[in-house]
Amino acid sequence: MPTQTTKMTQASHAGPLSPTARTTLTRSRDRAATDRAELDALLAEVLVAHLGITVGEGEDAHPVVLPVAIAVDHDGPDEGGSLYLHASVAAGWISSVRGRTVCLTATLLDGLVAARSGFHHSMNYRSAVVIGRCRVVADADERARALDRVVDHMVPGRSATLRPPTRKELAATAVLALPLAEASVKRRAGEPKDDPHDVEAGGWAGVVPLRTVAGAPEPDAWSPAEVPPDVAARAAALGHGQG
Amino acid sequence: MPTQTTKMTQASHAGPLSPTARTTLTRSRDRAATDRAELDALLAEVLVAHLGITVGEGEDAHPVVLPVAIAVDHDGPDEGGSLYLHASVAAGWISSVRGRTVCLTATLLDGLVAARSGFHHSMNYRSAVVIGRCRVVADADERARALDRVVDHMVPGRSATLRPPTRKELAATAVLALPLAEASVKRRAGEPKDDPHDVEAGGWAGVVPLRTVAGAPEPDAWSPAEVPPDVAARAAALGHGQG
Repeated sequence: MPTQTTKMTQASHAGPLSPTARTTLTRSRDRAATDRAELDALLAEVLVAHLGITVGEGEDAHPVVLPVAIAVDHDGPDEGGSLYLHASVAAGWISSVRGRTVCLTATLLDGLVAARSGFHHSMNYRSAVVIGRCRVVADADERARALDRVVDHMVPGRSATLRPPTRKELAATAVLALPLAEASVKRRAGEPKDDPHDVEAGGWAGVVPLRTVAGAPEPDAWSPAEVPPDVAARAAALGHGQG
Repeated sequence: MPTQTTKMTQASHAGPLSPTARTTLTRSRDRAATDRAELDALLAEVLVAHLGITVGEGEDAHPVVLPVAIAVDHDGPDEGGSLYLHASVAAGWISSVRGRTVCLTATLLDGLVAARSGFHHSMNYRSAVVIGRCRVVADADERARALDRVVDHMVPGRSATLRPPTRKELAATAVLALPLAEASVKRRAGEPKDDPHDVEAGGWAGVVPLRTVAGAPEPDAWSPAEVPPDVAARAAALGHGQG
């Protein structure tokens, strides 16, 4: 029972993904969808993704997973598209990313699957896994475009309404590009898969559908009364005002 | 603007966390809350967490991040509590966890922060990071309790309404415990932090609050008409029927 997918990318780039051994699923092949359009749609909808990096060296090396804002762009130098991340240049994790493989996972939860046995309880979800090395974006035009895309990922159209970033702000911001080359999408949808004898024994089973919903935009004390169209549209797209 | 926290753990165990260098934040110390009650509340509310593991050896080692269901229990052998994970014994990643440090990150998104500059755009969120080594749960009683907790994490009270797991189901399920010993919680809440000259220049800034909301439970074809109290209560706790 997936919720309606909100597509915010301009155009889905056709063609299958190229999963490698690292992103090819070893189980549940029926849940794997090597379809670039689905990857694009999922990455367009996810607001917070989780970035796995390796910190430390040798025996002390271990993974750390951080919540990150993302944006996808198909106009950059990476074939298949670029997934942009940004952070303060002072963030400790930025240095851990250089030259090392990272894993970016973006998940949307669509429902709780309540079966007639504990064993068959599950969740409906869509999840993308992207593995690769980040490119530190140095080109000024690409940096500016990437940061606009990150803002527009949150509130489509908003970057055009804002002043451009200052030189100081740009100097304080690290921009990374993860190529969308090695990726896979996995999902579960639909009803519980109960065992026949549990169905015969009776009892309720089904799905509690879930979605992320916006409330009314909350202005700060210095804002004009009217919510601007970009913010209002964003809240409406996320279900505000739909009861 | 955090949404109301739904507490589902029985009792919050008092006392501060014990952050180490790995989980002590190097930036934004004002956002770090070394408070066990907040960790418990966050882990109780998060439905899908992200587990970072290291796969491969030597030069080929890299992180992989997987979405996982979780449950927390304070009655197990781990001081500070146990975070339980489960998977099919056939899942490839299970073998990668043995003897290796993992990172479990649980994030709730509370709002989009639309500022008057791109630089100050942000998100309101709460996020817990737990680092440690997983214990493979072998004790039959602890395994049964852990699996009940995972079901009850999704739908509180549901495990008591179901038949017990079969020997075959238990044999097919791996249960892991990550001790809640080394953990940190980070959050952002409240209004945008705009620069004074941007506030003077005018324009709207504020927060679009977000929360996860349930729709009406969707029974499968073999279910009785009436939704059971546990499922109905779960949907109601997640906002179903509140308009």
